[in-house]
Amino acid sequence: MSFARFELEVAKVNDILCAVNLLTWDSRTMMPSGGVEARGRQIATLMSLARDLATGETMQRAIEDARAELKGIAAADNRSIALEQAASSIGTLSRIPAELVAASAELKTRAQAAWAAARAADDFAGFAPMLERTMEMQREIAAAIGYQEHPYDALVGTYEPGMSWSRLRRLYSELQKALIPLLAEAKGARTRSDILERAYPIEKQRAFSSAMAARMGYDFSRGRLDDTVHPFEISFTRSDVRITARFRETWLPGGLFAVWHEAGHGMYEQGVSENFSRSTFTTDFVNLYAVGGSSFGMHESQSRLWENRVGRSRRFWDLHFGELRGAFPDQLSDVSIDDFWRSVNAARPSFIRVEADELTYDFHIMLRSEVEAGLIAGEVRVSDLPEIWREKIKAYLGLDVPTDTLGVLQDVHWSSGMVGSFPTYTIGNVMSSQLFATAQKERSIAKGLDGGDYAPLKTWLNDKVHQFGRSKTPSEILLAATGSDLSTDAYIADLARKVADLTA
Amino acid sequence: MSFARFELEVAKVNDILCAVNLLTWDSRTMMPSGGVEARGRQIATLMSLARDLATGETMQRAIEDARAELKGIAAADNRSIALEQAASSIGTLSRIPAELVAASAELKTRAQAAWAAARAADDFAGFAPMLERTMEMQREIAAAIGYQEHPYDALVGTYEPGMSWSRLRRLYSELQKALIPLLAEAKGARTRSDILERAYPIEKQRAFSSAMAARMGYDFSRGRLDDTVHPFEISFTRSDVRITARFRETWLPGGLFAVWHEAGHGMYEQGVSENFSRSTFTTDFVNLYAVGGSSFGMHESQSRLWENRVGRSRRFWDLHFGELRGAFPDQLSDVSIDDFWRSVNAARPSFIRVEADELTYDFHIMLRSEVEAGLIAGEVRVSDLPEIWREKIKAYLGLDVPTDTLGVLQDVHWSSGMVGSFPTYTIGNVMSSQLFATAQKERSIAKGLDGGDYAPLKTWLNDKVHQFGRSKTPSEILLAATGSDLSTDAYIADLARKVADLTA
Repeated sequence: MSFARFELEVAKVNDILCAVNLLTWDSRTMMPSGGVEARGRQIATLMSLARDLATGETMQRAIEDARAELKGIAAADNRSIALEQAASSIGTLSRIPAELVAASAELKTRAQAAWAAARAADDFAGFAPMLERTMEMQREIAAAIGYQEHPYDALVGTYEPGMSWSRLRRLYSELQKALIPLLAEAKGARTRSDILERAYPIEKQRAFSSAMAARMGYDFSRGRLDDTVHPFEISFTRSDVRITARFRETWLPGGLFAVWHEAGHGMYEQGVSENFSRSTFTTDFVNLYAVGGSSFGMHESQSRLWENRVGRSRRFWDLHFGELRGAFPDQLSDVSIDDFWRSVNAARPSFIRVEADELTYDFHIMLRSEVEAGLIAGEVRVSDLPEIWREKIKAYLGLDVPTDTLGVLQDVHWSSGMVGSFPTYTIGNVMSSQLFATAQKERSIAKGLDGGDYAPLKTWLNDKVHQFGRSKTPSEILLAATGSDLSTDAYIADLARKVADLTA
Repeated sequence: MSFARFELEVAKVNDILCAVNLLTWDSRTMMPSGGVEARGRQIATLMSLARDLATGETMQRAIEDARAELKGIAAADNRSIALEQAASSIGTLSRIPAELVAASAELKTRAQAAWAAARAADDFAGFAPMLERTMEMQREIAAAIGYQEHPYDALVGTYEPGMSWSRLRRLYSELQKALIPLLAEAKGARTRSDILERAYPIEKQRAFSSAMAARMGYDFSRGRLDDTVHPFEISFTRSDVRITARFRETWLPGGLFAVWHEAGHGMYEQGVSENFSRSTFTTDFVNLYAVGGSSFGMHESQSRLWENRVGRSRRFWDLHFGELRGAFPDQLSDVSIDDFWRSVNAARPSFIRVEADELTYDFHIMLRSEVEAGLIAGEVRVSDLPEIWREKIKAYLGLDVPTDTLGVLQDVHWSSGMVGSFPTYTIGNVMSSQLFATAQKERSIAKGLDGGDYAPLKTWLNDKVHQFGRSKTPSEILLAATGSDLSTDAYIADLARKVADLTA
């Protein structure tokens, strides 16, 4: 009964974290404006209860008793994996002093306000002291977690287990070598954006994008689509996985691709084995977050796959542009499939990461990773950030940053105390192509994609990625699914093909 | 610091219970169908955590330390009140064995399914064994809580502190004496219902009823109105208080009066002193429920006041029928104010409590109270219930119950393990008139009501009722606000006046 007791303790933590997810979802979609303050306290109370339960004596004893019970069981047995994974993650969580977590949470509230004010006033200096303090705390957290080579490894590892700054540097260097010439080439492509800026009634955008998300395989009987300022996906177990979007009447791709992106995340969570509900394999003990995905990067691979590999493909629009034109006959009567496909794939170096296209997005990530690693190692000074930012954007994208609001002040992450998560966006891009390339080798999947039947692809992803939840590492999943660990080959090939098509 | 420590422990429990309220709200308004099972477990985990914290050693020590710290402070001081109230309620909660609570929760799930099936098949015998077991458990709970005169007192007291079966019997006998002749008289009134059964588009119903609720004083910046099967109000602190309704296109009053009813509950919660957030005075430790209202009956007084005393008054429709007709010009072009007012006040003895009018509603409650008290005392046998029900409906309303579905099987309460809450509906009716009669004596309030300005009335209720939260008992609130404890005089006078107007 000892292992069962361990499972019960984990289930309690997972239930609490699912409740936190609901409190969070509600605060971003439904909550009246008056609710902000009380909600913050409710979340803090539940988070600290979850932390107490996870790091408390009862859990520790449950783990030890379960270990004794499972003695002799193979290390590859899911019970052993769950036990050692929980023990290790809880160990990491325990090493971060509770006072540091509390101080960091408290700072976050003030830092976010300072950041918002600084961004509005284009006043980096006003935010700098908070950023200094945030980075100090992140250095302390990195030291508490521990690392082998570089302090940034400790932080990146909480989002992407097994990833290190040295591996990232190799990855980035491969990408830079390939993408810089591709980007130069893509600038010659004939694309237009006016098509996307016409008045597209929001309810029709919602209907079309939802219908397509359902066809891709997002299950609305176990999900919802709601409005929010910043789109996200969140789960309250496999059976209740919600996505949000933000539609803008005069920017069609903003809503559509966000829905398919979030649906990709959602299908991942919906596809985790039902047996893993309320278990270690759907609990991120380090970040105290109920989630079924193996890592942030693997999660992003699923959203990118449906957003970019499927949703931005020529094949997709050959199949579905007619339906889109059916929904918007006036807006699209003079637009050809080719025009439309080009318009949603145009490469345009720009300042804001979240609006960046596929060819420039990774440069934004590389820049941030380099800055973060430098800050955490103490090699970069906060006061130098605006200047470093300018230099890097010039070097990577050839642009002159006019204001810090369009530069170093644009992202919320640092003020939220999130350091080390940016790389997972690029990791996800790379993985998305790697998985997609392998999947397409299966005839039924390729045939399905050619005919608008996405079930074979989704089933393959369920089978090769989703079902495992957090019971396998990203590397294990990639290796088993594609025959190789993380590799940039397929991603670079995908982008090269896209540029070739765009400039043809 | 000891009292502060006590307050912190209470705040934690309150935060958890607010989270439970959100989990509940979401499950009834937003949750996709797949989420049911997992949600049940999440709620159970949080409830049991709240129970553990409330009844645990840390809380007990906090109470004792705070007592020592407050030694010498007046009993009327809010700190003393909070401390003794928490100690007493937690004492009651602790006396109910955790196993009994768990067994009762487990039975509830099965009993509700059995009840739903029995109601659908009109098969009371199929539900009877579950009902037997439920009543046994309720008897055990009553014994664990303890009582002076009658076991029913223990159960009623968890919903209405200070109320007893002997007091209820006196109240009911006064009501019967007055209402039976009134009901006979009301049957002669000229009323029609066809007016209300025309096609009223739901969005317009929502718009009109919401606008009126806002005018009554329900604050949408600290609230929301959503759709649900059974309307309810629920709060996540004073600053986030949500209401729900169910609109039917061909039954106009169903939606309108439900919105104003729930808005009445909502204004109560929104009106509780901000200082009482996360405190004993917004925590129902016995029912493990985050709520600011003094009792179920006092809560119902607020919903009834806005629904019936205001919303069904002649004055209200003299003022607002024009607006309603503006929203529904086709449906109401041939309808006079008098016709409309009569139609929403018609007295029609009927089988289903939730559809009953003001003159017959209390008879449904008396019947259920008598049955419950008899069952808990062991004087009534479950197997005799259908027959007893038939006799009482005949005696009170002159109707012959054709099926148990229209009789003893109609309510969900017993299968949910709720015994003793029905009387609070009638208590609320009585209180609503008592408070309203006093309020109207203030010239500014009467003038406001005559001109459609509901702010003075709402402010008076804030001042005399809402602000106190659970820091005063219903009796204390009534006595201070109206100069007398619970009294049927005003309620009977209100109904007598209504019958006189209807038959005029």
